[in-house]
Amino acid sequence: MKIKVAATQMKITWDIENNIKKAKEMVIECAKNGANIVLLQELFKTPYFCQTEDYKHFDLAEEVETSKFIEEFQEVAKENRVVIPLSFFEKAGNNYFNSVAFIDADGTNLGIYRKTHIPTGTCYEEKFYFSPGDTGFKVFNTKFGRVGLGICWDQWFPETARCLALMGAEILLFPTAIGSEPILPTDSMKHWQNVMRGHAAANIIPVVASNRVGTEIQDNSSMTFYGSSFISNPEGEIIGSLNREEEGYLISEFDLTEINKKRRYWGVFRDRRPEMYDAIMHLDGKRK
Amino acid sequence: MKIKVAATQMKITWDIENNIKKAKEMVIECAKNGANIVLLQELFKTPYFCQTEDYKHFDLAEEVETSKFIEEFQEVAKENRVVIPLSFFEKAGNNYFNSVAFIDADGTNLGIYRKTHIPTGTCYEEKFYFSPGDTGFKVFNTKFGRVGLGICWDQWFPETARCLALMGAEILLFPTAIGSEPILPTDSMKHWQNVMRGHAAANIIPVVASNRVGTEIQDNSSMTFYGSSFISNPEGEIIGSLNREEEGYLISEFDLTEINKKRRYWGVFRDRRPEMYDAIMHLDGKRK
Repeated sequence: MKIKVAATQMKITWDIENNIKKAKEMVIECAKNGANIVLLQELFKTPYFCQTEDYKHFDLAEEVETSKFIEEFQEVAKENRVVIPLSFFEKAGNNYFNSVAFIDADGTNLGIYRKTHIPTGTCYEEKFYFSPGDTGFKVFNTKFGRVGLGICWDQWFPETARCLALMGAEILLFPTAIGSEPILPTDSMKHWQNVMRGHAAANIIPVVASNRVGTEIQDNSSMTFYGSSFISNPEGEIIGSLNREEEGYLISEFDLTEINKKRRYWGVFRDRRPEMYDAIMHLDGKRK
Repeated sequence: MKIKVAATQMKITWDIENNIKKAKEMVIECAKNGANIVLLQELFKTPYFCQTEDYKHFDLAEEVETSKFIEEFQEVAKENRVVIPLSFFEKAGNNYFNSVAFIDADGTNLGIYRKTHIPTGTCYEEKFYFSPGDTGFKVFNTKFGRVGLGICWDQWFPETARCLALMGAEILLFPTAIGSEPILPTDSMKHWQNVMRGHAAANIIPVVASNRVGTEIQDNSSMTFYGSSFISNPEGEIIGSLNREEEGYLISEFDLTEINKKRRYWGVFRDRRPEMYDAIMHLDGKRK
């Protein structure tokens, strides 16, 4: 089966209606250009509010059952026959999660994935807002292939990609919000890409990352997101990417049948030795 | 602590004495140029005999206790004050392994690591010769840092690098023999580099790979090893590499103290969630 997947990136403001409008237009344009799966960036409904710790932002969260936002994108998915993994701030009981509603190309909500790995640190204060996800990794059986997805920080962990590949994913998606590091003297863009290119190469699977772009100011803080959304082939080579400033999208086609053959021929799943991997099951690499 | 590490690559023939001589000269030259750790390629004592399945090659194996080969390189290590992870074909009881004797800079043999992941397939018939290693991954506490090592095929598995990093490795080494794929229409060189660059980036650790170079003919079979030995920084960027044909070496310096800080600051070990990684402990990703 051949599929076309789109990586996208947009600037976001506190004009929420406009953010939603832009995202919808982006999806529709990608669909018109043949995309079967459109990956929008992380938490695009609002600016990246985790830049600072402020209780008022908890009001932005929404419950799956009553979310008009999810419903609207279910309609867009159905009308344009595209898969849309929809990143949103989820309220569930007394807990708050950084979640994705996985919308199939017929508009069905296939389920919710809650971000497993939650970062914290200057400008990325996510542990203040989100509980670590309790759903576990999920592979969604869509009209256009079995799709695995991690949310932003999840992308830094080889375990995310490996678990999803072992669970049968044929393509990996990573909605993202990453940019400046105000107190670390580093530009992480290449580092960020290299980790995910490694996931692609090690698991012989295409990887798509959509990142936020633009500068956002919140209270006395400012962040510039570095875009650089990209698509990697199953050998870890970047076959298309956007720059650090533009809004836009790019589309690549993959033949999942051919890639599944390549994954089988290469033998890296045949030769795994789980009995030797105990260190991975412990934070400090040691059985207590 | 600052260390200098050398990646090397050589052509090999059935003139075993000459192979050993070349390897010793390479180590000595690297040491003269400041290297503290010299990584030689996989099984450099002989041509890559696994190109075909032939019982006579089992005679090449040697026991650790009586190996003159290991002893010789212990002397070279001591005389030149360099760490030498020495790849060799090991006989142990009735079993045969693809092993490394880890020789410290004072000539001490710190221990044996036996290759965990064993490939098979046209020209890489290792399952015919070697049992899958039974030592588990090992980190060696050398005079020049805590060194983790995987042997060739091990390098394709994110689990190898992750386990070694969790066990405290500060640098990862991969002696290798890889080249042509006679029946697969692929050149795996970039793919091979991208997987290891991913290990470096995800674990925030330098990675060094030394690969064989040259064409070797055995019976009716022929292989060309693609060299391309390289050193990656902890962000997954290649900071030095050799080409596909030359014999030679390259040396890079790393400040392990600074890298350890970077690893701590970035938080990717702090935020791991082993309770979510069960799929990794099963071949098919599922608990039976």
